[in-house]
Amino acid sequence: MSHNTFGHLFRVTTWGESHGPAIGCVVDGCPPLIELAEADIQTFLDRRRPGQNRFTTQRREPDSVRIMSGVFEGRTTGTPVMMMIENVDQRSKDYSDIKDKYRPGHADYVYMQKYGIRDYRGGGRSSARETASRVAAGALARKVLGSGVRIRGALVQVGEIAIDRDAWDWETVDRNPFWCPDPQTAARWEDYLDGVRKAGSSVGAVIEVVAEGVPVGLGAPIYGKLDADLAQAMMSINAVKGVEIGDGFAAAALTGETNADEMRMKDGAVSFTSNHAGGVLGGISSGQPVVCRFAVKPTSSILSPRATVDREGNETEIVTKGRHDPCVGIRAVPVGEAMMACVLADHLLRARAQGQAS
Amino acid sequence: MSHNTFGHLFRVTTWGESHGPAIGCVVDGCPPLIELAEADIQTFLDRRRPGQNRFTTQRREPDSVRIMSGVFEGRTTGTPVMMMIENVDQRSKDYSDIKDKYRPGHADYVYMQKYGIRDYRGGGRSSARETASRVAAGALARKVLGSGVRIRGALVQVGEIAIDRDAWDWETVDRNPFWCPDPQTAARWEDYLDGVRKAGSSVGAVIEVVAEGVPVGLGAPIYGKLDADLAQAMMSINAVKGVEIGDGFAAAALTGETNADEMRMKDGAVSFTSNHAGGVLGGISSGQPVVCRFAVKPTSSILSPRATVDREGNETEIVTKGRHDPCVGIRAVPVGEAMMACVLADHLLRARAQGQAS
Amino acid sequence: MSHNTFGHLFRVTTWGESHGPAIGCVVDGCPPLIELAEADIQTFLDRRRPGQNRFTTQRREPDSVRIMSGVFEGRTTGTPVMMMIENVDQRSKDYSDIKDKYRPGHADYVYMQKYGIRDYRGGGRSSARETASRVAAGALARKVLGSGVRIRGALVQVGEIAIDRDAWDWETVDRNPFWCPDPQTAARWEDYLDGVRKAGSSVGAVIEVVAEGVPVGLGAPIYGKLDADLAQAMMSINAVKGVEIGDGFAAAALTGETNADEMRMKDGAVSFTSNHAGGVLGGISSGQPVVCRFAVKPTSSILSPRATVDREGNETEIVTKGRHDPCVGIRAVPVGEAMMACVLADHLLRARAQGQAS
Amino acid sequence: MSHNTFGHLFRVTTWGESHGPAIGCVVDGCPPLIELAEADIQTFLDRRRPGQNRFTTQRREPDSVRIMSGVFEGRTTGTPVMMMIENVDQRSKDYSDIKDKYRPGHADYVYMQKYGIRDYRGGGRSSARETASRVAAGALARKVLGSGVRIRGALVQVGEIAIDRDAWDWETVDRNPFWCPDPQTAARWEDYLDGVRKAGSSVGAVIEVVAEGVPVGLGAPIYGKLDADLAQAMMSINAVKGVEIGDGFAAAALTGETNADEMRMKDGAVSFTSNHAGGVLGGISSGQPVVCRFAVKPTSSILSPRATVDREGNETEIVTKGRHDPCVGIRAVPVGEAMMACVLADHLLRARAQGQAS
Repeated sequence: MSHNTFGHLFRVTTWGESHGPAIGCVVDGCPPLIELAEADIQTFLDRRRPGQNRFTTQRREPDSVRIMSGVFEGRTTGTPVMMMIENVDQRSKDYSDIKDKYRPGHADYVYMQKYGIRDYRGGGRSSARETASRVAAGALARKVLGSGVRIRGALVQVGEIAIDRDAWDWETVDRNPFWCPDPQTAARWEDYLDGVRKAGSSVGAVIEVVAEGVPVGLGAPIYGKLDADLAQAMMSINAVKGVEIGDGFAAAALTGETNADEMRMKDGAVSFTSNHAGGVLGGISSGQPVVCRFAVKPTSSILSPRATVDREGNETEIVTKGRHDPCVGIRAVPVGEAMMACVLADHLLRARAQGQAS
Repeated sequence: MSHNTFGHLFRVTTWGESHGPAIGCVVDGCPPLIELAEADIQTFLDRRRPGQNRFTTQRREPDSVRIMSGVFEGRTTGTPVMMMIENVDQRSKDYSDIKDKYRPGHADYVYMQKYGIRDYRGGGRSSARETASRVAAGALARKVLGSGVRIRGALVQVGEIAIDRDAWDWETVDRNPFWCPDPQTAARWEDYLDGVRKAGSSVGAVIEVVAEGVPVGLGAPIYGKLDADLAQAMMSINAVKGVEIGDGFAAAALTGETNADEMRMKDGAVSFTSNHAGGVLGGISSGQPVVCRFAVKPTSSILSPRATVDREGNETEIVTKGRHDPCVGIRAVPVGEAMMACVLADHLLRARAQGQAS
Repeated sequence: MSHNTFGHLFRVTTWGESHGPAIGCVVDGCPPLIELAEADIQTFLDRRRPGQNRFTTQRREPDSVRIMSGVFEGRTTGTPVMMMIENVDQRSKDYSDIKDKYRPGHADYVYMQKYGIRDYRGGGRSSARETASRVAAGALARKVLGSGVRIRGALVQVGEIAIDRDAWDWETVDRNPFWCPDPQTAARWEDYLDGVRKAGSSVGAVIEVVAEGVPVGLGAPIYGKLDADLAQAMMSINAVKGVEIGDGFAAAALTGETNADEMRMKDGAVSFTSNHAGGVLGGISSGQPVVCRFAVKPTSSILSPRATVDREGNETEIVTKGRHDPCVGIRAVPVGEAMMACVLADHLLRARAQGQAS
Repeated sequence: MSHNTFGHLFRVTTWGESHGPAIGCVVDGCPPLIELAEADIQTFLDRRRPGQNRFTTQRREPDSVRIMSGVFEGRTTGTPVMMMIENVDQRSKDYSDIKDKYRPGHADYVYMQKYGIRDYRGGGRSSARETASRVAAGALARKVLGSGVRIRGALVQVGEIAIDRDAWDWETVDRNPFWCPDPQTAARWEDYLDGVRKAGSSVGAVIEVVAEGVPVGLGAPIYGKLDADLAQAMMSINAVKGVEIGDGFAAAALTGETNADEMRMKDGAVSFTSNHAGGVLGGISSGQPVVCRFAVKPTSSILSPRATVDREGNETEIVTKGRHDPCVGIRAVPVGEAMMACVLADHLLRARAQGQAS
């Protein structure tokens, strides 16, 4: 069983709390002979790192990763790769006033009910800080997948403002603080989120992650479906409330004629004329781009007082004053990419084991 | 690893193909001393059974379940419960013309690419017939959960026609062929689906499953989240393309103030003033109803010819003439309920093991 | 978790009780395109079948296996292979007098304490009848391993009489009712066991299983060691109390100089000058024969009355009158072979997934 | 799958190499609210620590453990407990001459064949240094089991010299450098091992671990048997070649009459008149002491030159000059205790989940 482990053959076990000495992960099952340096991991951690602009939490963490095992003379050895990130800017005092009050939308109440104890400093284990470990593991997963598989994510909706999909330009994604593929929408979000931030409020978002170059045949029937594992992976990210593959919920309104991705031959290979399926048929990759979207709820930490109760069962109010994201969905983009990479790497190893004919 | 197994402590392994001698499942981990008769399982299989009205496939299967092990003198013994359902109405000849052609939207192409062989009769392992095993397992899961947990599903959208949520009446669900909680919408669907059926077409649907009476504290942090496991469970059902918990994708457009489910005391217990979260906080049940929705794509088998290719790489067309559902989403309602039951039963056993304080 | 499942990538889940309608297993993870007929399985079941001579239980079971899924047109499809064996000669009445008494050495008492219920007919789930499912799975595992891997077992000790290892002749094993590799010892066992049988007594035994042709590199460090998995596999067989790899306990008395299996080059490949290690180094196969021995305790069912207690806590005596083996170790030979095959097949698939360099 | 993870509900994942910056483990599934300080772990690490007398390796490691997560204000929180031990006294230069030669009896050759790369410094991942992580996890497992379960180990054979079992005195175990329960044999071992050490040779050993106070009902039928999991656990320890439960291999020579542990009532509870079974019946604990023995082969690193080959396939000789144990079995005593504790803690949590009637 795997409360803190993700994946089967490419297995990621994360550990650590927001305000402990460090966080990290153990990746078991990574094949040997992969060239790996800390810089390979750091690149992706830097993309996720908080405090880089005014739209994400102002916690200042260098998020420097250290590879503690599993690498010898610059290559993986097939033994567990432990990657550790020290916590530096913790400011435990910020959280002292919420020690006994349950923040609405947070896990405070359920942790206390379940465990009878919680590390209330910065959310403890339920902090989004844990996602740094996912990003580290995802960077390694990309190495396992190799350069033929390209995984990119983008923010496609912030609050009520969605991008213009016809304007999608991957080149733009890295040029704005939102990973937005549509520059005009990015500009609108900037104004919009400034207002949200100044009001001490928050909004939700939708992220889309696309994997190109995925070989045919990843995934397995029934309970080892690629799309089911992606759904689990994305839903396991903090604050995610919905996951779609391909057309997702829009598929419900289509007819069978429209939804069918017809097949033709092209250069001697099977080619699809559309991708409503999002690259997955019967739980198995079809060779088309794997397309996954997920919705992130608005950050629960806001400046408006909310009604709540405390540990002793008294009704009270709470205002969360800490350093938080007006739109936690922004930082979820690299996390979604990382989860896509981990799921695909796991299924690549599974396919090798289990009868890939081609 | 678990290609055909679902769950960790309440473990369901299914086996069988659409046109083999039988299908079934082994449930490992079922606690002892639960009263269990075949009739307890049959009730739920009868709800899912095909051929009951003109809106579902006309395949006639009695779907009689037989308990082969794990029950002694009317009670479970703690050993594996194997439940078997014979296949009766198979008509293999219906499928002979699709032996070499890949049906768009089906798993034909990817199975062939992955395995180099496929049982093309009725979809083989990828047939929705496998979901009968899920329903049998789900019936047992309900027994494990006990009568305090009530799990009900409803169809809330067919094609482009959604129900009026204000008209929701659970009493209505069993009185129409669609599991529709809104009688007026049910009437509209009847006309609409008659048209779809006569046109040889198909449409998608959205199903909502609600579990009431779920105790606080089911689920676990990070990779054992209740909502993540529900997402995986629902996405593993044939033809599902999206999953939502609580407000789902709509949460992206909300502000933190609106989305917060505030807490008050009521009769000495914590009570929430709303349920945007769908009963799950930080991956752990909050005691509110667990609300899960999923979208089913339109049945891929339609009477209009679609462009495709065959095994030899020739371009061709295909028409699927078999007995099929104009809206496969209808029969997905009891399957969704069953998956909800299995996930909750699994997490109930996990909570017993792992530190439930209360 | 896997109470009734064995293996990770070649996963065997068994179900069924001694006196239920049938027993069987689901093998998940079997690669596709393997030629498989029921006769391939039946051959091995026939070797284990009870009632074949006067030294094993006189229960008459045809043990006819039926493949219920996972095979299409004579080849595996990559989906679960369910194999079922009906129970025919059950004679429930034989067991009625032990319904409330705990047989010493049997699992009666602990099952009752653990589960509060037990199927007392023939031992229920704890009956050695379950091992027929293992033999079926093992026959499939041999197919996965291919003809290059040869797995053979032999009985090397019965009661206090061990074979003369210098007289070992594999050809002899199939020519006596004991799978004995030493004809002279076989003759001694025949007399000895006749005496044991007539006295209503029983004795233990030691089985040795050898796998030749195992490629280098099966197994993995630390908790995925080939020898650790073999130890678990053999110890999971009914009545087994000890397991050895290579020299086993005798290695404790050796010096490092004697125990070292030195290496030389032979025909361009590494060759070992001895095999104290039993084919496993650091948990990984070395290419030498994998040698595993296990000890089986004497059958607990004997005709001499033994002191025991009943369910109500009364002191009493018990005599087990059923049809039983004077030396259950004899029938453990094909079971040990089957477990060796399952462990190796599982590790072969793992090695494919995880970085086998060669 | 679990190459570097042990256990299901009390899950231990270890990481780290002999000569990397640190080693450690992540324990997932530890229940909350257990009082835990680093000193609780350190006590057990100190027992295993090398360099404490002339009979174990002279590597000087303080083995100071640091708890990195999962503990808040002195109690476990239910989240993963990561425990880290820095490597201090590494002396990489000692190993440079064995970089390309395969040491007989070591994992050098198979690692290289399997992975195509190995960290040759001190054995890398295959070093017995990994067992420090097991001891740390075992210390936590003892806390989970509570003070009612007492786990003690002893060395019962060194080379050809076994203890006198009638002289067994647990009080003596901590008073000699061998964990020997028989003072007179301890004195003989001292002379004997001085000779072995001076000769640059090594010998094997047998360890016995006994757990008292284990409740009835731990373990589960078939593939979740307590004794099978113990066999796997002990066989996974470096250099172990055999495992026995209760009478072990000696049971093969017994008759059913002798081997039967008869039952009587004593103070209103079931009591056994003997413990040939070693506390396990049908894979489930009986309430008697759980008795497990395992054999450790002689240390492979010796001063006498042995014939071997190098990476290029040249025949050569090797002498291992490093700091090594003349009898690695001595330090295996606390490791065996730790594995017993981990297995029992895992099964205790499983029993809570799965239907323990009492």
